[in-house]
Amino acid sequence: MASEMANSTSQIVELNVGGVGYTTTIQTLTKEPESYLGQVFRGKIAQIKDSKGRYFIDRDGVLFRYILDYLRNQKIILPESFAERDRLRAEAEFYKLETLAKALIPLKATSADELTSSLTPLGITSKAPGYVMLGYRGTFAFGRDGLADVKFRKLSRILVSGRVTLCREIFGETLNESRDPDRGMTDRYSSRFFLKHSYIEQAFDMLQEAGFSCVASCGSGTASIGPNDLKPGMDSEENRWNHYNEFVFVRN
Amino acid sequence: MASEMANSTSQIVELNVGGVGYTTTIQTLTKEPESYLGQVFRGKIAQIKDSKGRYFIDRDGVLFRYILDYLRNQKIILPESFAERDRLRAEAEFYKLETLAKALIPLKATSADELTSSLTPLGITSKAPGYVMLGYRGTFAFGRDGLADVKFRKLSRILVSGRVTLCREIFGETLNESRDPDRGMTDRYSSRFFLKHSYIEQAFDMLQEAGFSCVASCGSGTASIGPNDLKPGMDSEENRWNHYNEFVFVRN
Amino acid sequence: MASEMANSTSQIVELNVGGVGYTTTIQTLTKEPESYLGQVFRGKIAQIKDSKGRYFIDRDGVLFRYILDYLRNQKIILPESFAERDRLRAEAEFYKLETLAKALIPLKATSADELTSSLTPLGITSKAPGYVMLGYRGTFAFGRDGLADVKFRKLSRILVSGRVTLCREIFGETLNESRDPDRGMTDRYSSRFFLKHSYIEQAFDMLQEAGFSCVASCGSGTASIGPNDLKPGMDSEENRWNHYNEFVFVRN
Amino acid sequence: MASEMANSTSQIVELNVGGVGYTTTIQTLTKEPESYLGQVFRGKIAQIKDSKGRYFIDRDGVLFRYILDYLRNQKIILPESFAERDRLRAEAEFYKLETLAKALIPLKATSADELTSSLTPLGITSKAPGYVMLGYRGTFAFGRDGLADVKFRKLSRILVSGRVTLCREIFGETLNESRDPDRGMTDRYSSRFFLKHSYIEQAFDMLQEAGFSCVASCGSGTASIGPNDLKPGMDSEENRWNHYNEFVFVRN
Amino acid sequence: MASEMANSTSQIVELNVGGVGYTTTIQTLTKEPESYLGQVFRGKIAQIKDSKGRYFIDRDGVLFRYILDYLRNQKIILPESFAERDRLRAEAEFYKLETLAKALIPLKATSADELTSSLTPLGITSKAPGYVMLGYRGTFAFGRDGLADVKFRKLSRILVSGRVTLCREIFGETLNESRDPDRGMTDRYSSRFFLKHSYIEQAFDMLQEAGFSCVASCGSGTASIGPNDLKPGMDSEENRWNHYNEFVFVRN
Repeated sequence: MASEMANSTSQIVELNVGGVGYTTTIQTLTKEPESYLGQVFRGKIAQIKDSKGRYFIDRDGVLFRYILDYLRNQKIILPESFAERDRLRAEAEFYKLETLAKALIPLKATSADELTSSLTPLGITSKAPGYVMLGYRGTFAFGRDGLADVKFRKLSRILVSGRVTLCREIFGETLNESRDPDRGMTDRYSSRFFLKHSYIEQAFDMLQEAGFSCVASCGSGTASIGPNDLKPGMDSEENRWNHYNEFVFVRN
Repeated sequence: MASEMANSTSQIVELNVGGVGYTTTIQTLTKEPESYLGQVFRGKIAQIKDSKGRYFIDRDGVLFRYILDYLRNQKIILPESFAERDRLRAEAEFYKLETLAKALIPLKATSADELTSSLTPLGITSKAPGYVMLGYRGTFAFGRDGLADVKFRKLSRILVSGRVTLCREIFGETLNESRDPDRGMTDRYSSRFFLKHSYIEQAFDMLQEAGFSCVASCGSGTASIGPNDLKPGMDSEENRWNHYNEFVFVRN
Repeated sequence: MASEMANSTSQIVELNVGGVGYTTTIQTLTKEPESYLGQVFRGKIAQIKDSKGRYFIDRDGVLFRYILDYLRNQKIILPESFAERDRLRAEAEFYKLETLAKALIPLKATSADELTSSLTPLGITSKAPGYVMLGYRGTFAFGRDGLADVKFRKLSRILVSGRVTLCREIFGETLNESRDPDRGMTDRYSSRFFLKHSYIEQAFDMLQEAGFSCVASCGSGTASIGPNDLKPGMDSEENRWNHYNEFVFVRN
Repeated sequence: MASEMANSTSQIVELNVGGVGYTTTIQTLTKEPESYLGQVFRGKIAQIKDSKGRYFIDRDGVLFRYILDYLRNQKIILPESFAERDRLRAEAEFYKLETLAKALIPLKATSADELTSSLTPLGITSKAPGYVMLGYRGTFAFGRDGLADVKFRKLSRILVSGRVTLCREIFGETLNESRDPDRGMTDRYSSRFFLKHSYIEQAFDMLQEAGFSCVASCGSGTASIGPNDLKPGMDSEENRWNHYNEFVFVRN
Repeated sequence: MASEMANSTSQIVELNVGGVGYTTTIQTLTKEPESYLGQVFRGKIAQIKDSKGRYFIDRDGVLFRYILDYLRNQKIILPESFAERDRLRAEAEFYKLETLAKALIPLKATSADELTSSLTPLGITSKAPGYVMLGYRGTFAFGRDGLADVKFRKLSRILVSGRVTLCREIFGETLNESRDPDRGMTDRYSSRFFLKHSYIEQAFDMLQEAGFSCVASCGSGTASIGPNDLKPGMDSEENRWNHYNEFVFVRN
């Protein structure tokens, strides 16, 4: 059915990696010529065969799946909850795949530039880990008489705190830095950012899109205010229902 | 036992996908004629065989399970906590299965129409991710004398906030939008929706059915009210036990 | 060592299901005579063999493990966090195993009867999903002088709310429905149930036994009470420490 | 290299369990002589072989890994988050391994004795499931003038509540039962235990060591106290910051 | 292509470990000469072969992957959420790999020295488990008139509590121990540590880097203060919004 002229079967290579069989091609294996596999399959390093004639590599057979994927595509997409990142880096080091090994080093969100440069060449989808907190001081919108039945959540400002580079990456143009302007310091934290809008679920959605999850939250009400302290124009019901809710987000 | 006349063994195809063996039929492989596999098995693209005579494909052997499932059924049902969605999309792109690749792009819940159209052709069960919050202002129902022993949770209104399209998808007819009616804007957030009933567990169950999980919650009481501020008809015990509880739900 | 007279080797059947090998017997495969496999192995449907003489089935090879288990035992026990329920239902439909396919449809806890009847024939351990909330209004037991050092948690009543059928299934005889008696409605919610005992951890344990997990909780204190409002016999310390804690449980 | 005189190759047994191959020895398979495998390999039950001469067993091939492990070691250590306990019990019952089957029945923490006896023979590491709650009434240590800058968390007593047998298993000698002494009842709950020390993280660590996880928590402040109610020697700042925090732990 | 002179094929060893095939070399298997495998492959212990001529070992075939990895690298990196640590230790004991077995014993964070010495030789990445809590007493920064619109979270001190060795490992130089100085006791807990900075997200990030996760949190407000108790210079709005938020972190 399919004609077999274009490629030669001799280009197919069968591997026995620690007992797990893989099949691939010379082209794939030599894509990084100076890597261990590149040297082996350009004839620079001798390699023994097993009893079935497969090239034998004395390394973990399971993780080789990702090594091979990286060679095929020159980029790597890891499973979303990949649990063997450190193990894979050790394999990448053995195979002398430096770009891959470097890309598997856990990132720190020090500066946006550094982040970009360590991500781009390989296309690894991993991002710098860290915590970010959102908080809001809220109450409810009451009707004129203080007892009307329509009372929605009312919040004036969404507070953002955390590492500056993370906050910028997540919220971009919607982040208001006017109260804590950049003075050229890198790797700094702030608790003085807020958002330009007041939809907290929109902020949550942006955190989600950036790979963060909500892991905890805490709420607290306020102490009462004496009747003499009530400023003109303040609604006493709104005052009573004041609360501060704080949400903890993390990216692993 | 089973007669073997209806189909010919020659229709069976053995594949070696990166070292993992699969067995399927020509019919399955050519269901999408213009895909990579469709072209190979209609004889348009040459394909090499491995030493056992299996057609060799230099791609990830594990994810091919889902590629094959898609070809067999012309739809795809992913495991519930599938962790290789991005990796599978890369495979779908390699195999030129455009409908599949497109269906694996993370969705945004922009409008109900768009949602529908991107889901229907393939039957992928994935839904747009996002956060929705429910809150209620509650207290307890007290007996006449303020100390009777039967005091149930009493709540007047379940507040809903989040992306409008998500809220509508989840709560359907039970969502009251009268305080924030649609003015034709798409992709908007609201914190002015509420539900037509007051059973918060029913609301939770609808969120669960829509694939959302509760990940956090916060509670707060109220500040006290002066004795002079107690409106006629208000029960002072009910007043004291007022609280606002807020629940965070997310769909990934 | 073991004599080989009782059964004939010819009863063993080797299968190639999408590339994964299984071995079983004719007896197992024909247990449901009208199913797809029953028809194949009673000679009613022709089936092709692969190059090794194994009967070939063009379906997912991994999920077939559970199909075979179901045929062997006429019941199915799924792994506790089984993530491919929808995928398995699609396979059951292909194999015309109607009882299995029906048992994999997500349940709704509408009525106890319906629940029972859909579970019994197959013995599938899955239960109806849903949310249930427990709440308690508590304070502490103080000594006579209000400052004694032994102060335990004191709570008078555990409030239960959620779908009526779920509450009954979980708490059975320990549920007090006297404040919201059954009037023959099905599929209804209540927030007026309470428990006959006051050990909240016992209630948690019953939820756990029923397959529920605690996923969130919120606490709130009370607003202060004027000194004139303190009823005779009320301890002012107990009053101050009043709080309402609410716990969210879910079954997936 | 290794001499091959001590054992005979004929003792090796190759098995085909539902299509998955295993290799083991007669000694291992006959360790429990009256079990199904013991009877088969002592020649009491006839067993058929597959086309490769392997003894064929028409059962799940994956779970057999643990059956074999149990036979080799006469004890079983399950993976920490093993999700197929019910399925494995069904297999143990088929193989007539009663001790194993019994050890896989979900435990109830009824009494310490019963717990011990059902665990010891097999060495299964599973423990009785259940919920335990810790709570503390805390505030902060203030300086003399009420405004000094060093204010640590100050808590007088860690309250423990839950099933008595669980509390004892977890906290052992550090549990103070003086306020709810044992009166010979088994299977009882208490909310009157406290700890002999006041390091809540130490209590958390003991819960962790016993296999419990923290899954929820709630906090609440107190209502204010009238100035006339402030007892002599009470610090008004300490009074204001009083709070009750409660932590929910579970073992699955 | 690759020359085959450097190593001899005879050095390759094929193993059948409980039915799972592995391929490795004599050099790898004899790296620890006194281990079980070291003795077998130096000819000191006789070993039988299976029907395919592979050396047969009657042990679990899946966990052998990590045994082999350890022998290859003389260190072991486990998957991040490895669930078979106890099972692997039992295997290590069977193979007489004492360093490996010892490294798999669950650690206790008793002293920094002990921690270091048990980790270094093998390079196992596991760390001592335990709970640490962070708390802060916070409010908001208000403008002069108490109503200005810019109000950020304001917190004076981040309180740290937990096992002393854990706190030091996590926070290093940023931990202030001046209020609870070391008096030579090991294995002690403290709730009197605080941090030298006041960025709570930075503290969270350090916990994350040390392998801790946030699993719960609780918030509480304060009771009101009488107007006469307001000290000169205290802002009444700041006073009202006082709250204490506490965050629970754990490492498993």
